[in-house]
Amino acid sequence: MTDKQGSTNQQHIVLAHGGGGELTRQLLTEHILPKLSNDLLNPLLDSAVFSLDSGRVCMTTDAFVVWPLEFPGGDIGRLAICGTVNDLAVMGAVPKVISLALVIEEGFSLVLLDRVLDSVAEAARESGVVVATGDTKVIERRDEAAGLTITTAGIGQMREGIAMTPSRITPGDVVIITGQIAEHGLAVMSAREGLAFQTELVSDVAPLAELVGNMCDSGADLKFMRDPTRGGLAGVLADLAEETHLSVEVEEAAIPISPVALHTAELLGLDPLTVANEGKCVVIAAANDAERVLAACRRTALGEQAAVIGRVVDAKPPVVELITRAGGRRLVQRPYGEELPRIC
Amino acid sequence: MTDKQGSTNQQHIVLAHGGGGELTRQLLTEHILPKLSNDLLNPLLDSAVFSLDSGRVCMTTDAFVVWPLEFPGGDIGRLAICGTVNDLAVMGAVPKVISLALVIEEGFSLVLLDRVLDSVAEAARESGVVVATGDTKVIERRDEAAGLTITTAGIGQMREGIAMTPSRITPGDVVIITGQIAEHGLAVMSAREGLAFQTELVSDVAPLAELVGNMCDSGADLKFMRDPTRGGLAGVLADLAEETHLSVEVEEAAIPISPVALHTAELLGLDPLTVANEGKCVVIAAANDAERVLAACRRTALGEQAAVIGRVVDAKPPVVELITRAGGRRLVQRPYGEELPRIC
Repeated sequence: MTDKQGSTNQQHIVLAHGGGGELTRQLLTEHILPKLSNDLLNPLLDSAVFSLDSGRVCMTTDAFVVWPLEFPGGDIGRLAICGTVNDLAVMGAVPKVISLALVIEEGFSLVLLDRVLDSVAEAARESGVVVATGDTKVIERRDEAAGLTITTAGIGQMREGIAMTPSRITPGDVVIITGQIAEHGLAVMSAREGLAFQTELVSDVAPLAELVGNMCDSGADLKFMRDPTRGGLAGVLADLAEETHLSVEVEEAAIPISPVALHTAELLGLDPLTVANEGKCVVIAAANDAERVLAACRRTALGEQAAVIGRVVDAKPPVVELITRAGGRRLVQRPYGEELPRIC
Repeated sequence: MTDKQGSTNQQHIVLAHGGGGELTRQLLTEHILPKLSNDLLNPLLDSAVFSLDSGRVCMTTDAFVVWPLEFPGGDIGRLAICGTVNDLAVMGAVPKVISLALVIEEGFSLVLLDRVLDSVAEAARESGVVVATGDTKVIERRDEAAGLTITTAGIGQMREGIAMTPSRITPGDVVIITGQIAEHGLAVMSAREGLAFQTELVSDVAPLAELVGNMCDSGADLKFMRDPTRGGLAGVLADLAEETHLSVEVEEAAIPISPVALHTAELLGLDPLTVANEGKCVVIAAANDAERVLAACRRTALGEQAAVIGRVVDAKPPVVELITRAGGRRLVQRPYGEELPRIC
C-alpha cells in the first residue's frame, strides 16, 4: 500500500495507476493511447460502439499468463493478439475487433509495458484488427519480478458459406498441418530454462488470418480447423476423435518439425506432439481438395511448409494412432495435465 | 510444480487443470458446464458463433481483481457479470453475450469456485445475458490464500435512436443518480477490515439492464449515462466536466446515501463521492425530462431512490462543485490514485 501517490515521471507501475483516478488517466493517455490510438479506443469510454455487417459473428476470449513475458520470437503482447485472432480465424471468421484487459503488478516496469504495447499494436496491424476497448487493473506484487497478465476478447465476422463443424468429417478426409510444430512451447521453455541453444529456437507466434483466408477463398471443402495451442497437435486430434467417433492416423515422418525443435524436445523430455503452437493450423478437408488446400497455404510464408500428415479412418474404438518412422504404431493421447505450465 | 497429476476427486485446483489436457476437460465438464450450460458454450470450442441483428454493437471488457472474493451482498462472480452488463447498459445497449476468462491460482478451492460460478450463472440469468465462451488458466499460488481473477468481455446490441454522447449536454441539464451511493466500495472495505458493522452494509452490485431499459423506453432525452464504479460519483462528474467544458453543481443534501454508509465512510476516512458503486447509474437529461426519468427509475426496486442531485452550469473554468449541507461550496475532484485498491 506504499507508493500510493507516485510521481508522474516514475518508471514503474504503482497501485494508484489502477485506481480510476488521475494516474489511471495518465497511464492511458501517455502509454496506452500513443501505442494503440484508433477511433474506437480514443474516446476512453468503458465501451466501444461499432457496426458489424448483419449475420453471424464469432466471439472468443483468452487469458495470457505466459512466463517469461518476453521470449525468442515474441512476447505476451504479440501472443495475446495472435492467440485471439487465430481462435477467430480457425472458425472461418474474419477477425475485426479486440478488447484488451491488463492486470499489472505494482512495480512493473513502464519501459517493459511500452514494449509489450508496441507488440500489441504491431500484431494488431499485421492481423487487420483494431483494439477497440480495454481495462487496466493494478494488484500488489507478490514475487521478485512484477507480473502482467493480459486477457483479450475478439469479435470476428463469419464468412458466408463456411461451416466448419466436426460432424461433416468422414473417413478418407485428410489431416493437414500448415507448418512446423512445437516451436512456441519449446521456445518459451528454453527461455525459461536459460538453455544455451535458445537463440536458435524461435516461437512461431503469428496471426493466421491471411493464411486461413487463403484457404477459405480456395474453394476447397474445409470441414474443420483448429489452432493446436495448449495440448498441441495431440490435443486437437484427440478432441477430434472424441467428437467425430472416428479414428485418425498420422504419419510421424510427414509431420513438419525442425531438427532444433526435435532436439530440444528430446532434451526436455517432451513429446513434440503435445507442445503448444501459436501460428499453426490443423485442417481437415476432403481428400480431393488436399492439393488445393496446400497450394492456398503456400501462398503465404506462414504456410510454406504445409503438409498432409494423416487421414481420418473408420476404425473403432475411435483413437489417434501415430505411424512411427520405424513403421510401428502408437496411440496418441491428449496430455493428462500440464506439461508446460504458463506457456500461453 | 508439485501436484501436477492430481486425482479426479481432489477438492482444489492444481496446475494441471490449466494444461489443456484431460484435467482441463474435467474442470469444464464437471464444474463449469453444469453451472453455465447453454447452446453457445456447450460445444466447448475456443469461440462461439451467434447472430446479431444488423446495426451497431457495443463491446466492453473488465478485469475483476476484487479482494476478498466474497463480500456482503455479492462475490467476484456476480461482480464480473454485473460490471460488464452495466458498462453495456449505460451506453444504451441491450446486453447480449458475455465471455468469461478465469485465471485461478493452484490450491484454489473447487467448492469456492462452484459458488462463484453459481453467482455468475444467477447474475447472467438476472441480466438476460448468455456466457457464450470462456478460457481457464491456472498459475502458481504465491500467497497464503489462493487467488482468482475474472476477466469478462461483453457484447450488446445498440438501441435505435439512442445517442448518449457528452457533446449533447447543455447548461441547465439535470444530474440524476439512480440510488444510494458508495455501498459497494464500503462493503468490500468493511469485509476486508473485518469491521464489526459489516453485516449492515451490503454491496449494491446489481445489473442495470432493466433500469436503463426503462429509462430508454420512457421517451426522455437521455444525453449521457455512466455507472460510477472506480473513482465513484466524483470520477464520473470530473470526466464529464473535462469532456464537455461545462461545470457541474451537485447538492450534498440531495445525494442519496444511507446512514450506515455515511458512518462507515467517516470511520474509514473516505469521501463517499469517490467510493465505487456497482449498481448505480449517473444520468444527464434535459431538465424538462427529469420527472420522466425519475418515474422510469422508480418502476424497478433498483431505482426507487433515484434523485436529481444537481445540474450542468455554464461556469468557467469547468469544475465540479458540491454545495454542502451547510450551504458552503467545495470543489469535487477526481481522486488522484487508489483510495480503495482491488475494489472491483
